[in-house]
Amino acid sequence: MSDHSDHTHDHPHKHRKDIVNRLSRIEGHLRAVKEMTSEGRDCSEVLLQIAAVRKALDNAAKLLLKDHLEGCVVDAVKHGDEEKILADLNKALDHYIK
Amino acid sequence: MSDHSDHTHDHPHKHRKDIVNRLSRIEGHLRAVKEMTSEGRDCSEVLLQIAAVRKALDNAAKLLLKDHLEGCVVDAVKHGDEEKILADLNKALDHYIK
Repeated sequence: MSDHSDHTHDHPHKHRKDIVNRLSRIEGHLRAVKEMTSEGRDCSEVLLQIAAVRKALDNAAKLLLKDHLEGCVVDAVKHGDEEKILADLNKALDHYIK
Repeated sequence: MSDHSDHTHDHPHKHRKDIVNRLSRIEGHLRAVKEMTSEGRDCSEVLLQIAAVRKALDNAAKLLLKDHLEGCVVDAVKHGDEEKILADLNKALDHYIK
């Protein structure tokens, strides 16, 4: 298992594959936005597309968060080992939502 | 000139190149986040990185918006031709900030 974290990832992550696919699509979308920008396309059009990328990113993050809550957090609480995982999650949420 | 818009892009866009570079870096960052995700890295770590991508995207959008205001919008107003550009910009802002 990865040593990047104190908790191991031995429970299932239902949406992990879906999240990876979403991130792939977002990457492609972002590449297209970059091309639009370098072609000198209208600023408002580019801004609209950046807004769409941002929304897709938020939805991927939401799915990741749901996975995390249902999998890692529930698992950690059941093992009486939730302190670190909740601290890490709080930190991530503080960065995400401000 | 592109026919995607009613207004032409004959004024300078000071930050256009910077924005393209930023979008390139964000694309690379997003690719790394996708790899972290498919490797099963800790959810909070991934969420932190998605938050960083989102912030970088917001900063690119901000720069684009400044360029647009200083260049396209000022130009359109000077030519008494601001109606469409402001309508498009309002639409883009409505999508961006909600």
